[in-house]
Amino acid sequence: MLFKESEEGVKIYKLQPVQILALGFAGVILLGALILKLPISSADGTSTPFIDCLFTATSAVCVTGLVVVDTGTHWSTFGQFIILLLIQIGGLGFMTFATLFAIVLGRKITLKERLVMQEAFNAFNIQGIVKLAIYIMGITFSIEGLGAILLSTQFVPEFGWKRGIYYGVFHAISSFCNAGFDLIGDFKSLTPYVENPVINLTVMGLVIVGGLGFGVITEIINHKNMKKFSLHSKVVLLTTAILIATGAVMFFVLEYNNPNTLGALSFKGKILSSLFASVTPRTAGFNTINLPDMTTSSKFLTILLMFVGASPGSTGGGIKTTTAMLIIMTVYAVIHGREDTEMFNRRIPKEVVYRAIAITFISFMLVIGVTMVLSITQSGDFMEFLYEATSAFGTVGLSLGLTSTLTNIGKVVVMLTMYVGRVGPLTLALAFARKQLMTSKSVKYPEDRILVG
Amino acid sequence: MLFKESEEGVKIYKLQPVQILALGFAGVILLGALILKLPISSADGTSTPFIDCLFTATSAVCVTGLVVVDTGTHWSTFGQFIILLLIQIGGLGFMTFATLFAIVLGRKITLKERLVMQEAFNAFNIQGIVKLAIYIMGITFSIEGLGAILLSTQFVPEFGWKRGIYYGVFHAISSFCNAGFDLIGDFKSLTPYVENPVINLTVMGLVIVGGLGFGVITEIINHKNMKKFSLHSKVVLLTTAILIATGAVMFFVLEYNNPNTLGALSFKGKILSSLFASVTPRTAGFNTINLPDMTTSSKFLTILLMFVGASPGSTGGGIKTTTAMLIIMTVYAVIHGREDTEMFNRRIPKEVVYRAIAITFISFMLVIGVTMVLSITQSGDFMEFLYEATSAFGTVGLSLGLTSTLTNIGKVVVMLTMYVGRVGPLTLALAFARKQLMTSKSVKYPEDRILVG
Ligand SMILES: [K+]
Ligand SMILES: [K+]
Repeated sequence: MLFKESEEGVKIYKLQPVQILALGFAGVILLGALILKLPISSADGTSTPFIDCLFTATSAVCVTGLVVVDTGTHWSTFGQFIILLLIQIGGLGFMTFATLFAIVLGRKITLKERLVMQEAFNAFNIQGIVKLAIYIMGITFSIEGLGAILLSTQFVPEFGWKRGIYYGVFHAISSFCNAGFDLIGDFKSLTPYVENPVINLTVMGLVIVGGLGFGVITEIINHKNMKKFSLHSKVVLLTTAILIATGAVMFFVLEYNNPNTLGALSFKGKILSSLFASVTPRTAGFNTINLPDMTTSSKFLTILLMFVGASPGSTGGGIKTTTAMLIIMTVYAVIHGREDTEMFNRRIPKEVVYRAIAITFISFMLVIGVTMVLSITQSGDFMEFLYEATSAFGTVGLSLGLTSTLTNIGKVVVMLTMYVGRVGPLTLALAFARKQLMTSKSVKYPEDRILVG
Repeated sequence: MLFKESEEGVKIYKLQPVQILALGFAGVILLGALILKLPISSADGTSTPFIDCLFTATSAVCVTGLVVVDTGTHWSTFGQFIILLLIQIGGLGFMTFATLFAIVLGRKITLKERLVMQEAFNAFNIQGIVKLAIYIMGITFSIEGLGAILLSTQFVPEFGWKRGIYYGVFHAISSFCNAGFDLIGDFKSLTPYVENPVINLTVMGLVIVGGLGFGVITEIINHKNMKKFSLHSKVVLLTTAILIATGAVMFFVLEYNNPNTLGALSFKGKILSSLFASVTPRTAGFNTINLPDMTTSSKFLTILLMFVGASPGSTGGGIKTTTAMLIIMTVYAVIHGREDTEMFNRRIPKEVVYRAIAITFISFMLVIGVTMVLSITQSGDFMEFLYEATSAFGTVGLSLGLTSTLTNIGKVVVMLTMYVGRVGPLTLALAFARKQLMTSKSVKYPEDRILVG
């Protein structure tokens, strides 16, 4: 009975940071929108419609990258700087919060991960939090700085020192935070650099590292030997590698003969852009080939990759790599007559698997619901709606062109989707269920079975 | 150790009927195709291309109803009779087999359902099987007979006695078996009868009852009091009711103002056709309104309903109502902090939930894979491919028109999908995994956790 009480006590405690997080980010979004509304924020010195400011701020804080106005041409340098700040707060803040969450939740409630993070910061007090935040910021700025230097080597020759370095910094931050905002202009994203290996590889590198999650990054820095990695990091790295490789090979095959995408490129360009197309749904949102020109099958593949997204505690969205892998391994266990889900010679407890089901199902229903609402309220075809809904949910930022034609209702729907996708559908569902949790009884019903499938 | 051995012994035993079933139905399909190839089977007395014969036979035995040639005009009465026979074998055979399976599997391995069937036929010997088969056939023919009489009251005034009764019998069998084949001609399905309440309600009744599964039908016949029903039957009935009601309301709202569908109908016709549109994806395949004219959101809703399909051990396909409900209740349990999935005050064991995940995931991947292949090999748009793939997997038989334009590759893909969808993707996966099961070790790994979502 004592145990039950303490368990419920923790449950109540657990939901407070969720609410703080959700409200805090809503506040940042609103503040950002108000600043973007100022005439000084736009390139032509006029005030931008509030719905577009709100959309841009939501997209930036939720590191999505869907835009209703072109970032490079519509906003002034001041406006772009505000967007960059929002991206950094969104990316860094979520990363920091997500890591803190993992520690709090992990230690006290459901997830007892043996992440290095927990060893490093197991003294959970104000001092620990500050230390952790500094550590995270240090790593973030180091990686972004390196990326900015590499990108500047390409942008400076093209745009001169001032603009070249600015572009380097902006796109490095936008890449590491998986934000997908760009300054190239006319919604072109990175298409002019489709054959540029430095820009391609730097952006991909930043996107992938940013999408791994802070816990995994820390383990990579601290351990040279992969065998010593935690189960979580092993699963993240394996799944990320599989997704990137499979996606790249499929895009290469599906688009090889498409004259509007890979067909016109050199062999090197074909390989670079296949890789890029496979990396960007995890969940950067840049593109180097024109998305509406891709084949139907490639678009569908992109939707699937966007739905999976990046890894937990990262700057990326989606249901997460570990969630997808856990479901696959559960299916494997059922087919092979194993009682438990197994990964790297470890059993995964039932509640983690159930949690993975909950996340996947809620996300799936969210994407379906948003697709439905878009198909009722907007004009376009089914693929565009499903693509847009998945992109907003996964905070990816890729679009077949629907974003710029959205009506006000459509903008509100996409904004809400980005927000829910970033805060996490299960997290929000748990926050809503708070009252029920507090009054939930501990009746244990008798076991019974039903036929399935 | 003894327990482990006996468990493996049963697993090996379990796979033999799966293989018999899979091969047996392949045999019936082939035989059916060869008979349909005969000139006597076609209306104009010429031999039909073998691929179309094979497609029709597969569609009939798998009670799907997707057709590459129109059933009412292309085939002779003899050909139609062969198709009807294949439908009855497919529907009855699968029903009988599925029930036998439930008993065998249920009693000895994974599913210990307390279905009434088990009490009635727990003496599992030749005599028991014969008794059971007779019982099932008796119920089937009674329900089909009743349906045939009701339908004939409408068809006889229109087509005269002979043809009217023939139509009544054919459509009653096609409805109860969830086959979706019709004789109305020109791929019209039941659209001429959109406002006819007798035909609508009879077909819906037959489809729903056929889709409940034999175990549930038996319980309804034997118990008047719903409280005495097994957990399985309660879940099936509740889920079926929710799906039909929700679907009907949504179709009503989404199509109300569509001049090409509900818009032109009377209020009674609007209600009847909304209900019909909601019932037919479970998994009849008839339609009373022109499917390509529906709104995008309605088409998407149809895809979702087709994916769920009917109930286990029935003539219908899909992942099944119980599977969907089990996943929803697992999500509910996670959100509400419950350790186990609960339904009607009963705990559902982990292995049943894992099985539900496996079925859903494999089915999902199958639909995705087929959609991909269709989008690469056929011309049409994404919605048509996804619709066709889901329809074939769920053995539904609804199509936006792609079936009649399929290339030979497309026909083969759709045929295989119907076959896999009917035999069951998990069943087939288990059959393939047989060898691994026999050699699987019983190592129990230490527990470990990962972050998800
Ligand atoms: K993004
Ligand atoms: K059917």
